[in-house]
Parts: sequence; structure tokens; C-alpha cells
Amino acid sequence: MATSDAEALVTSHDPNHPANLICELCRKFYTLGWVTGTGGGTSIRHEDKLYIAPSGVQKELMKPTDMFVMDYESKDYLRRPVNLKPSACTPLFLAAFTMRNAGCCIHTHSQWAVLVTLLCERTSEPNVFSISTLEQIKGIPRGYGPEKAGNLGYYDTLRIPIIENTAREEDLRDTLEGAIREWPDTYAVLVKRHGIYVWGKDVAQAKTQCESLDYIFQLAVEMHKLGIPWVKQ
Amino acid sequence: MATSDAEALVTSHDPNHPANLICELCRKFYTLGWVTGTGGGTSIRHEDKLYIAPSGVQKELMKPTDMFVMDYESKDYLRRPVNLKPSACTPLFLAAFTMRNAGCCIHTHSQWAVLVTLLCERTSEPNVFSISTLEQIKGIPRGYGPEKAGNLGYYDTLRIPIIENTAREEDLRDTLEGAIREWPDTYAVLVKRHGIYVWGKDVAQAKTQCESLDYIFQLAVEMHKLGIPWVKQ
Amino acid sequence: MATSDAEALVTSHDPNHPANLICELCRKFYTLGWVTGTGGGTSIRHEDKLYIAPSGVQKELMKPTDMFVMDYESKDYLRRPVNLKPSACTPLFLAAFTMRNAGCCIHTHSQWAVLVTLLCERTSEPNVFSISTLEQIKGIPRGYGPEKAGNLGYYDTLRIPIIENTAREEDLRDTLEGAIREWPDTYAVLVKRHGIYVWGKDVAQAKTQCESLDYIFQLAVEMHKLGIPWVKQ
Amino acid sequence: MATSDAEALVTSHDPNHPANLICELCRKFYTLGWVTGTGGGTSIRHEDKLYIAPSGVQKELMKPTDMFVMDYESKDYLRRPVNLKPSACTPLFLAAFTMRNAGCCIHTHSQWAVLVTLLCERTSEPNVFSISTLEQIKGIPRGYGPEKAGNLGYYDTLRIPIIENTAREEDLRDTLEGAIREWPDTYAVLVKRHGIYVWGKDVAQAKTQCESLDYIFQLAVEMHKLGIPWVKQ
Repeated sequence: MATSDAEALVTSHDPNHPANLICELCRKFYTLGWVTGTGGGTSIRHEDKLYIAPSGVQKELMKPTDMFVMDYESKDYLRRPVNLKPSACTPLFLAAFTMRNAGCCIHTHSQWAVLVTLLCERTSEPNVFSISTLEQIKGIPRGYGPEKAGNLGYYDTLRIPIIENTAREEDLRDTLEGAIREWPDTYAVLVKRHGIYVWGKDVAQAKTQCESLDYIFQLAVEMHKLGIPWVKQ
Repeated sequence: MATSDAEALVTSHDPNHPANLICELCRKFYTLGWVTGTGGGTSIRHEDKLYIAPSGVQKELMKPTDMFVMDYESKDYLRRPVNLKPSACTPLFLAAFTMRNAGCCIHTHSQWAVLVTLLCERTSEPNVFSISTLEQIKGIPRGYGPEKAGNLGYYDTLRIPIIENTAREEDLRDTLEGAIREWPDTYAVLVKRHGIYVWGKDVAQAKTQCESLDYIFQLAVEMHKLGIPWVKQ
Repeated sequence: MATSDAEALVTSHDPNHPANLICELCRKFYTLGWVTGTGGGTSIRHEDKLYIAPSGVQKELMKPTDMFVMDYESKDYLRRPVNLKPSACTPLFLAAFTMRNAGCCIHTHSQWAVLVTLLCERTSEPNVFSISTLEQIKGIPRGYGPEKAGNLGYYDTLRIPIIENTAREEDLRDTLEGAIREWPDTYAVLVKRHGIYVWGKDVAQAKTQCESLDYIFQLAVEMHKLGIPWVKQ
Repeated sequence: MATSDAEALVTSHDPNHPANLICELCRKFYTLGWVTGTGGGTSIRHEDKLYIAPSGVQKELMKPTDMFVMDYESKDYLRRPVNLKPSACTPLFLAAFTMRNAGCCIHTHSQWAVLVTLLCERTSEPNVFSISTLEQIKGIPRGYGPEKAGNLGYYDTLRIPIIENTAREEDLRDTLEGAIREWPDTYAVLVKRHGIYVWGKDVAQAKTQCESLDYIFQLAVEMHKLGIPWVKQ
């Protein structure tokens, strides 16, 4: 692809163009403490292309020209910025895109997510975070397809699977795909001592779920400190 | 109503026009963590009209054209944005407007409010939050009408009723109205495991009360952690 | 004084003009949680005049034209904005200006300050907060006059007097003046279950001390939670 | 050096010019609570010159013209702003520049760093902070030179030396240099009850390490509160 074509892929005055939107989202996520120290990542599927933030950069300073662009069908890069490395999260983002038809996938290192996995490590169910009877649970979809339309209700129990972390981020692929298969309704997977992957059909659904989950994780840590059980008895 | 008239209802260069003000307030509430994950809502009564933020949207990104406008007398919508849903809080906002002549009603999912309801669940008085002898209590009005003019004093005890949450937000209406009747002086009602409704005669009173209450709830949670009783003995 | 003269007192393009600076400071203090819910206040002495933020307003929204201006010599108001009330802190600010020749006095409702007074309530010395052996102590001046020039050292113990709160803010005047006399080196007085008054020879000294003290109070609360004594033994 | 030449040293439209970048970094660090109350400092080595933020100023308000500029070879000041004092951190920054060939050195008073040193004081190893099995550890380089290229891995243990604080900041020089020699792989040194010095080959590496370390310290304090050991057993 000619250089000018590769530039055109990330050049737009529309603030909702994926290359602009990823930069704006990451600035917001930085102030929330989700992607500091170059951690985390974000990817958007737009028509037949994937837009992916690069690896190892200051996430609040990214520019549209830092974006990697991949052809969704062939998985070939249409655009690879010189001097930048593709995100190690790419195979994990692809799992959400291909297995759950996601439109956006967000990976954060939220401290509340990490603390929740550490607290679950000590329970009899270290591989799932469960919480019930909180209004904010309504921010999370019930599952996929017409018979699971709509969001969870107040009396439902939200369950998010937790997978083991691996030495290399790419190596999470198999267990992440396994968790997605094992939990066919989930829109998120926690990674032990690491963070979380959250996706949705579009940017708004992925981002607002990320917010709802982080709210719930922070509340869960405070509830634990105050001796209040996560699942109402 | 013609489209141009419906547009005129939310088009103004005045930053204090309700349609502009709701957007500005929600941006502020988002940074405070009160309305993340599409939670919460805000409504302003202006002359003979109600302006109400829509349901299920990213609250920090709202535009004036996203506002619902209702005729206060007839309760008919004068403006319903296409593709947006009216807020499920609408009947609850109406309770504050009609029963207490409010000019603004704010609903947040503040984590401190939720934690306070969780801590009260374990006490002998699970249906009321009580705290005394804090300067910030002076930010809350004493009640309604000339004989209750002015705000609470330092030695007074602030009491905010707590109602049970329901599966559907609309179903809170009866218990919220009941709490307003049972607590004739209150300007706020906590909802268990959910958040808070706060109102005032105008935007400034509703917003600054919301701030004072959130300050007090956060302090109350910290006091609890440190073993300091809420009501001075 | 003619209206045009009264307006000239608060009209300047210089961001360091007291009327502009108080607004800018209060916007910053609002984001720090020090003056939410209309709490707190700020006053600057400039040449022969005092500039004072009004009572009961949203501190992050103040405009220069909201400022009260007082002739420092006569204590007469040179400017009283219509529809606004002078700050109840005024006599307390005056104590710092007249007794300690302050150039700026800041009053906050910092939650960390309040928590520190609550923790001191339970000790054998409820009327003074003491902490030692922290680098940030160096942000606080040693006292007044040439023989007390410079700031506290790392091994010094910082002591801030704590006074009882009163029903009406104006009534703090006598005890605040008493604490200033009893603690001739102090640049700050904590008010139990209320907040803190901090002053300095100029805005920079008052504001940076306010920051250093708040940092120290927050650290002190965390130290208490972790079982670490405030004064190194 | 003529005044105009001294001015030219800090005058540039390039946001990445060291004099501009230090101001921008310190504004960011202020909002993170790392340099409030005039605490902390930042220095960048650019070609044959050092740019250093002054002592005792409001770090979020600095202007490029406030910068000190030193000739790296001779250690002579090429530019000394009138009415400002050189940073007491200067000899400490120089230790990182000369002993580890750093391109940027950052000093913060992060409360999490201070709390971590306080928690280590009570352990059998008060002079080193150790933590393992957290994804964010990957934000820290393994060491120096080709055989230590790349960053730490998930299963590695991160170790940051802790030195005693001294009455005067300049007096930290000997112990800081000692710690750098004793810990040849470290990119950071904690100072007990004071804060941290962090450096890197360039601004991006120093800043993102600072973020990763602060994230880890905050997590470590929370882990301690929840009874979770820092080094996985």
C-alpha cells in the first residue's frame, strides 16, 4: 500500500473516526489510572478494518498516526507505523472480535480489577468474580443473541471469569479463548494480577461496561474491607 | 409540535439554559464518579417545562439536542429525541418536582452513598442514615416553608431516609413518594445498593447539596473504618 | 464609592490581581475537594485592601465581580456585591491578617483535616496534631521573625493546634485568636470536625502550606490505618 | 553568557524542548499529587546541557524561563534565573546522569512511595522494597547494557533499594550514590519517609517507570491492608 493511502487510513476530521477515537479514549483511560506506565490497550473494528493502539507508548500522548491498521479478513497490516511495535494484546483483541463479533475491545490494568483477582485467589472459587444485588450490575449485558437481549437485573448475579496470567501477553490467547467458550454470556475476562479485557458491540458499549465493571470492582474492594459479602445472602 | 420548535427548546447560547446546564453538570458529575457507566441522571424544571437527560447514554458526552423536554402541566413530551429513551428516573424526578416544588433533581450512583446504605443495613436502623456534629451538615436545608428556613446547624443530626431498591427503576416511585411523605423535611432519599436522589429549589441548591452529602458519606465511611461513631455521643 | 470605582477594584487583565487569583485558587481547591458544597473560603490582602470570596456560593464558579473588597485600615467594605453575603470567615481571616501580618488566608473543609481532628479526639492530647520525621514537614515555616526564619527540618515535630468548633462560624473568632496567641509559631489552626485555617505572608506561601498540610494529614490517616505512629519513637 | 543567549536556552516553540517539557511534566505530576507543596523536582539532560526545575516553587505554575541550565561537562550554570534557587536535588540528579547515563531524572514525594518505606521499616528487610508476580512489573527495565536488555518479566521480583533520609536533601548524595553502586540494575531509589528518585535513558522511560512504580506502590499498600503478601509464596 502506498504511503499516502496508509496515511489516509488514519486521517479524518471526524472525532468518531476510530484513529481519533482511540486517542481520545486512551486520554480518558489515563486519567482514570487504567493505562498508566504504557499499560493497557484499545482496539476498534470499523467496517472491514481493525484499528489498534501500539505497544509500549504513553497512552495519553498517542496521535492518530501512531495507530496500526489491520485488514480484518486477511489479518494483514494495512498500516504499520515505523519505530512502533504492534500491541501484544492483538491476538487477545482478535479473540473478542472473531468469537463474539465485538466492535471494540479495551484492556486495562485497573488496580481495582487486580485487587479483585487477588481477593478471589483466597476463596474457594478463585476463577470467577461473583457479585449480586447492586444497581450498577444493570450496566452489563445478559449475553448474546435475541434470547439474551438486554442487561442483567438488580437481583441477578454478575459473574466474570478470571484466568491465570502468563509470562508473555500473547500466551494468554489460549486461556482467554477458553474462558470465552466456557462463559458464553460474558463480555469481559479478568486476568489474575494483571487487569481485564472488556468488549462490546461498539465503542459505547465496551467503554460504559468498562466503567460499570471498574465501579463494581472498587465497590467490591471497599465492601471486603468493611466485611460486607459480595453476594447477598 | 414542529421540528423547528422542538429544536428551539434546546438551542441557546446561554450557558445557564437548562439544556446546556444539564450537559455541563453531567460532565462534572462524570469526573466525580457519580454517573459513570451511563448511570444516574439530572432534570431541571424551568418555567412550565421539564428538561431531562436521556437514559443509557454516556453522561459526559451529552449534547443539548439529546434532552427530553416535557410540559410540566400536562406531562406530555414536547421533545423526544429520535433513537433515545426517556430516563427511567422520570417518575422519580416528578415526585420531587410535584411533592416538594423542586427546581432541579439529581440522581447519582455515588459509591459512598451505596457504601453508606450497606453499612446501615447492618445496624438497628437500616432505613435511615444519621450523622451529627460535622460542619458540612450546614450545607443541608432544615426543611420547607418559612418556619424551617435556613440550613441545619452544627449540633443538629442530619437524617436521610433509605428505601429498598427495586428490580425496575420506575418501581421505586411508590416507596420514594412514601419516604418523601414520611420525612417531610428531607431534600434527599438514599436507595439501598443503588445511589441517591437529591433535589433543591434550583440547580445551585440541588448540586451543592449533592456535593455536601457526598462529602459527608465519604467521611462517614472513613469514620467507620477508623471506629469513630457517626452520631457524637 | 461610585459604582464604576467599585467595579474597577475587581477588574484587571492581570491573572495575579487578587480578584482573579481568588477565583483561580478556588477552582483548584474545588477539584481537590477542599471547598465543595459552598464550603471553605479564601482571602487576599493586597496593599491597603482585603479581597474576600463571598459566602454560600459555588466556589468553582466564582467571578471577580463576586468579590467583597474591604479597606484594611477602617474595615469598611469598599465593595459589596448585591445579592451576595460576606463570608462568615471574615473575622477569622482578619485574625490571621492582623495578628500575624498574613498576606493570604485559606479556609478548607478538607476531609483529611477533619479526620485528623477526629483521630486526635481519642488521644491524650486532643487539642494538637503532632507528627515528625517526614520530608514534607519541610514545607511548613518554623515561625515568625528573623530568629525563626526558614522552614521546619526533617527531624522536627510539626504541631498544629486544634480548636473546638462552634455553632456559628463567626463565634470561632475568640478561640482562633486564642490559639494564635498560645501557639506563636503556627501558620495554621485546625477546627474540630470542620476543617482548617492556613495563612502565609503571600498567596504562594499560604497555598503551598495548605498543600503540604493536606498531604501530611492524608498520610497521617493512612499511617493510622496501617498502625504506624505519627511521631517517630 | 549574554542575557539574550541565556534566554535562547529556554525559548522554543517545540513542546519537546526540555524547558517546555519540564513544565508540562510538572503540571501532570502536580495533578497526580507527586509534587504538591513545592515538593519534588525534574531534570532533563539534552545534548551537552542539563535543564533543572528550580527549588521551592509551585510546580504546576512553572514557566520555561524558571529553568536552570547547566553545562553538563563543566557543571557550570549557563543560566540562573534571578530570585530563584537551584534545586537541592541537583547533586542527586547528577548521580543518575553520571553513574547511569540517564537522560531524565524525576523526584516525587508520592504518598504511596512514602507509605511503602514506612511499611518496610517494620520488616526484616527495611532497606529494600520487593514485590513479585504483577503484570505492571513489566514496566521496569531489567538493568543496563546489552546482556540486561528489555524489561522485567511477570515472574521476576522487582527490588527497589530504600535509603535513610537526611536532614538536608544535598546530604542524600553519598547514600544515593552508594545505593546505585550496590544495586547496579536499579533505575530508582526510595528515600525513607520522603519519596523516590526515578530515572531513565530518556523522558518517556523515566516518566513511564515513575507511573509504573507509583501504580505498584499504591497496589502494595492496598495489598497490605487486605493481608496479601507482596512476594507471591
